[in-house]
Amino acid sequence: MKPPSPDPKDPLVLFMPSGKRGRFPVGTNVLEAARQLGVYVESVCGGRATCGRCQVEVQEGSFAKHGIVSSCDHISAKGPKEERYGQVRGLPEGRRLSCSATVQGDLVVDVPQDTVINAQVVRKAASDRVIERNPAVRLCYVEVDEPDMHKPLGDLDRLKAVLASDWGVKDALVPQRLLPQVQKILRKESWGVTVAVHRDEDDARPEILAIWPGLHNEAYGLACDIGSTTIALHLVSLLSGRVVASAGTSNPQIRFGEDLMSRVSYVMMNPDGREAMTAAVREAVNGLIDKACAEGGVSQTDILDAVFVANPIMHHLFLGIDPTELGQAPFALAVSGAVHATAAELGLKANEGARVYLLPCIAGHVGADAAAATLSEGPHRQERMMLLVDVGTNAEIVLGNRERVVAASSPTGPAFEGAEISSGQRAAPGAIERVRIDAQTLEPRFRIIGSEKWSDEDGFAQDAARLGVTGICGSAIIEVVAEMFLAGIISEDGVVDGALAQRSARIVANGRTFSYLLHDGSPRIAVTQNDVRAIQLAKAALYAGIRLLMEKQGVAQVDTIRFAGAFGSFIDPKYAMVLGLIPDCDLAEVKAVGNAAGTGATMALLNRDHRREIEATVKRIEKIETALEPHFQQLFVDAMALPNKVDPFPKLAGAVRLPPRKATADAAGPGEAGPRRRSREERMARRARG
Amino acid sequence: MKPPSPDPKDPLVLFMPSGKRGRFPVGTNVLEAARQLGVYVESVCGGRATCGRCQVEVQEGSFAKHGIVSSCDHISAKGPKEERYGQVRGLPEGRRLSCSATVQGDLVVDVPQDTVINAQVVRKAASDRVIERNPAVRLCYVEVDEPDMHKPLGDLDRLKAVLASDWGVKDALVPQRLLPQVQKILRKESWGVTVAVHRDEDDARPEILAIWPGLHNEAYGLACDIGSTTIALHLVSLLSGRVVASAGTSNPQIRFGEDLMSRVSYVMMNPDGREAMTAAVREAVNGLIDKACAEGGVSQTDILDAVFVANPIMHHLFLGIDPTELGQAPFALAVSGAVHATAAELGLKANEGARVYLLPCIAGHVGADAAAATLSEGPHRQERMMLLVDVGTNAEIVLGNRERVVAASSPTGPAFEGAEISSGQRAAPGAIERVRIDAQTLEPRFRIIGSEKWSDEDGFAQDAARLGVTGICGSAIIEVVAEMFLAGIISEDGVVDGALAQRSARIVANGRTFSYLLHDGSPRIAVTQNDVRAIQLAKAALYAGIRLLMEKQGVAQVDTIRFAGAFGSFIDPKYAMVLGLIPDCDLAEVKAVGNAAGTGATMALLNRDHRREIEATVKRIEKIETALEPHFQQLFVDAMALPNKVDPFPKLAGAVRLPPRKATADAAGPGEAGPRRRSREERMARRARG
Repeated sequence: MKPPSPDPKDPLVLFMPSGKRGRFPVGTNVLEAARQLGVYVESVCGGRATCGRCQVEVQEGSFAKHGIVSSCDHISAKGPKEERYGQVRGLPEGRRLSCSATVQGDLVVDVPQDTVINAQVVRKAASDRVIERNPAVRLCYVEVDEPDMHKPLGDLDRLKAVLASDWGVKDALVPQRLLPQVQKILRKESWGVTVAVHRDEDDARPEILAIWPGLHNEAYGLACDIGSTTIALHLVSLLSGRVVASAGTSNPQIRFGEDLMSRVSYVMMNPDGREAMTAAVREAVNGLIDKACAEGGVSQTDILDAVFVANPIMHHLFLGIDPTELGQAPFALAVSGAVHATAAELGLKANEGARVYLLPCIAGHVGADAAAATLSEGPHRQERMMLLVDVGTNAEIVLGNRERVVAASSPTGPAFEGAEISSGQRAAPGAIERVRIDAQTLEPRFRIIGSEKWSDEDGFAQDAARLGVTGICGSAIIEVVAEMFLAGIISEDGVVDGALAQRSARIVANGRTFSYLLHDGSPRIAVTQNDVRAIQLAKAALYAGIRLLMEKQGVAQVDTIRFAGAFGSFIDPKYAMVLGLIPDCDLAEVKAVGNAAGTGATMALLNRDHRREIEATVKRIEKIETALEPHFQQLFVDAMALPNKVDPFPKLAGAVRLPPRKATADAAGPGEAGPRRRSREERMARRARG
Repeated sequence: MKPPSPDPKDPLVLFMPSGKRGRFPVGTNVLEAARQLGVYVESVCGGRATCGRCQVEVQEGSFAKHGIVSSCDHISAKGPKEERYGQVRGLPEGRRLSCSATVQGDLVVDVPQDTVINAQVVRKAASDRVIERNPAVRLCYVEVDEPDMHKPLGDLDRLKAVLASDWGVKDALVPQRLLPQVQKILRKESWGVTVAVHRDEDDARPEILAIWPGLHNEAYGLACDIGSTTIALHLVSLLSGRVVASAGTSNPQIRFGEDLMSRVSYVMMNPDGREAMTAAVREAVNGLIDKACAEGGVSQTDILDAVFVANPIMHHLFLGIDPTELGQAPFALAVSGAVHATAAELGLKANEGARVYLLPCIAGHVGADAAAATLSEGPHRQERMMLLVDVGTNAEIVLGNRERVVAASSPTGPAFEGAEISSGQRAAPGAIERVRIDAQTLEPRFRIIGSEKWSDEDGFAQDAARLGVTGICGSAIIEVVAEMFLAGIISEDGVVDGALAQRSARIVANGRTFSYLLHDGSPRIAVTQNDVRAIQLAKAALYAGIRLLMEKQGVAQVDTIRFAGAFGSFIDPKYAMVLGLIPDCDLAEVKAVGNAAGTGATMALLNRDHRREIEATVKRIEKIETALEPHFQQLFVDAMALPNKVDPFPKLAGAVRLPPRKATADAAGPGEAGPRRRSREERMARRARG
């Protein structure tokens, strides 16, 4: 290959979207130029103009910023091979095969991220970002020398020789399983074969995963996030980078225990518990593979690589590791580093040779899913201080920038997910998902899932009659408690003001405390003092964790906030800030990023450099164990107040009208007996300490 | 580690038997000094004086040649750890633990090759040679840091960290199978574990094969030669280098076909043929493993490595590869290079993580067994021209020296093994194994297997009555034909001289030809004209092959000859030379080396450098395909004469009285009809061309 030319008279070639550029002598092959510059352009056939994977598009026009005038005249005319490809397979208007076209003048070349071969149906993107590709598994078409009695190298040895000379794949390892197949495959299509080569870490030997007769032009990977509650899987083309199908299911381990700790207990109590849960999750993943392959029209034998992310307990159970150690201090992971395995070892439906990669775990409570979210959102890639929060039964918190990243897990408990809330329920039709309370009348308006109307609008009654008004879903619990606070129904210390019962029938006595009646139907939906306490405890745990990390970083505020996971997608950032779940921040900088863990898994699937990036990042992330921080308990107690004792929220003030702060805010409110309050708080603090 | 000192005042340490030497400051640990010099001294415990593997012996006395006066005073006195080891485990008189002892003055240190721990019974050496050790699998005892919540590295990750710091094993790969076991094993003996690490090729990542709690002090390997007829296996301690048990069995594939080609035919004719033969050979190997483990008192889970050698067809069948391609030109091997696999992949009884290595094959007819014999005898390591011959149904021939090595296979057929011979039989009690013929009377004397007496000695009759005289075994066929030649019964062109019938009743008519009556009993044992022809054809094939290689090397004679295999162990080199199986050579330089392939396998098992050595050697061995050499047929025809037309055997002349050579030797003898003779010869020549 010719290196970029230093001669300023040579044409300048700029590749988009990477922006990489260099000068090349007239006549340089465009694919070669891309490789010289480190621009990843796929090619299976090795420049024979048969696979069609190396398509590029010339952008015409004057690119003044780069000093380039690009034109279709600056690329060679189509030769006979390229013409033939166009006739046989079809080449979209404007597209060229970079392996056949040569540089004739200055060029701006677009490397499309959607090279669709065989009219594959593209269903859904894991995210809308463009992921630069450099997958760990590549397809390499080669034409092997026929056997020669004068040089009696074995068939496989000659295959390896041409892999080295044509593709630079030197000294590839070959699993024993392939040895009995090699000779027949080589003779099937006149010694032309496609080889799937795995090369992940630079210092690892490349390995041959599979061999097909002739040109094989399909290769897929899986990106899968195994959550405690749901499992989400993307089927991705390793050749085009596109997600061809996605599938999700609830984690069948739920039948062994709703939350993580109950599953650990199940393992501890049942001799076959670990095995049963491992089998359950692998079966579920196989079900998703079936579904995604059917949807994408993909053969399972074309799945060659897979990336999995999960929290530590799911990670261990998926790998067949007993998670008991994770249930007790010191929360020792069996393995924290990235794990390389094979699909066969894990009993997954894929090509026999398919590889599996699991991202590293950050700590015993902060898993590979948090690592994947970090990879996706990239606090370590930027100057600004980013807070990344994934709220579940535990909140996983990452805070940092290019300089330094810290991480912790905080035991929020299941209140944010609607559990432990008297009228809480999962998100389902009929569940209240939005709430507003009039500060004057204390009357509520709300919306339910399945209806487009607010409860005070025409037509709502019909929808309510059809769907029912069944409870409050997780995201609305934040909203209703925040609205109660903004309406003055609860004080800064979280006590429902019983005095308001004189003014509104919505405030009702409930033993020694008061509740707010949200909906007087069947069932009767109210927010009790206990509900408010549960939310207060959960938000205090989350906020104390964030605060601890901010102290570690020595910052008084963060620049940008990312909510990962389903919870973050549904709550209104404004209410999260009113309640004090998160620190003060420009609302425009608070973003829900959906399944960031799944996006990170896809990135690691499509580009092995991202694997090295997150492995190096996880090594330098400082893990803060809240249980070991004596200060954490004080932060937790302080965070019980609404919004928070320590945080004045100046940026939030513009967005909502915060009630005036009391001169002497005290965490123990008058409406609840002191001893009982303290004992619950202490229990939470103990839980927080692990 | 301290490098050897350049200071001439520092003590000089000489290690035997390697002869490596260097100066080290007073106080240098003896084990460290050995490692500095590249002397392999085993150590499992990593210098904790608990495994006892690093024993050495100080040689006392004046070693004038080296300028060293060595004395036990020049090594430090036993410290408390070493004393304790001696008390608990016992340390033979004069032995020291090199990890505990330090250099105090000039020393000659013997590294014993028989460090016997746990009073293992040593049964039989694969050969009497000392093999310097550097096995691909090593045991490493480590003490792992306990989990620390401040640094939440996983258990396995901390294990890998200490492997790197204590043993220089960096970034070891860990198979998924071990992940579920790690935590329990680590906690069993207070975080002390022994790790089996595989590192074969220098550029391959080390891999953890197995982990045991505490100090595990046993590791074994298998060296196995899979022959067409017999399978031989050695069980070898990887820690001491000693063969602890050997076992052999006949190859059960014989039931599918006596010789190689009939087994290939079986595969071609039977859809399940390949599978059945693969299963049969693996089962037989497992049987030998059972036997050797029982004999050596070794647990199968302590078998961690294995080296296999075989001819190409056995090699392919063992790996599960259809050998059909090897049955026809161009005799394409599926794989010729060294093969790395796991015992699990091949269904072998060993530790779950045990590795398997197969030496490279030289060509389609010259297998890994010939490579192993080459490794053992080392033509490539010396100046002299060495001829290495392994006679079976095919003769594998290697000829070369340090400069250049050539190899070929020649189709000798089964005559040398007693097949196709009228009274031929396998070596068994009652078979004639030695023959002498009186040149005057033409009367024979012979010995049979199972008797110490010659047939003309007192007491033979009783032995013969007990054992019977049942036939002629393979090695004796060479001898009887050679004696017939020396007695003038057959001419240079191999014709039994019918005229002698007038002089001796031993010469009997047999249709149009004559036979020599060796034993007039029941059965009647005679050597027929056809028998002589069969031997002539076999020896012509062998000798023509040798001659071809000598021509390639451009030498008129060879310096030294090695007969490998069972056949070579039983024939008398003198008779082999009389018949012209081998070229002229000092008889003292003709040696039978027994199972050289097995010895080579053992070398590759005990020292991974030997693997690289034979891989590099096989790459530069020039493979000569006799079928492609137009000259081969002429050499073959020329070699029909006794001893040989082209070779005057001046060195042999001193050892035996050769009959005077006829002026006009003609391959077609008068006693046999011309046309029939030629057609057989042509058939053989065709067979030789493949």
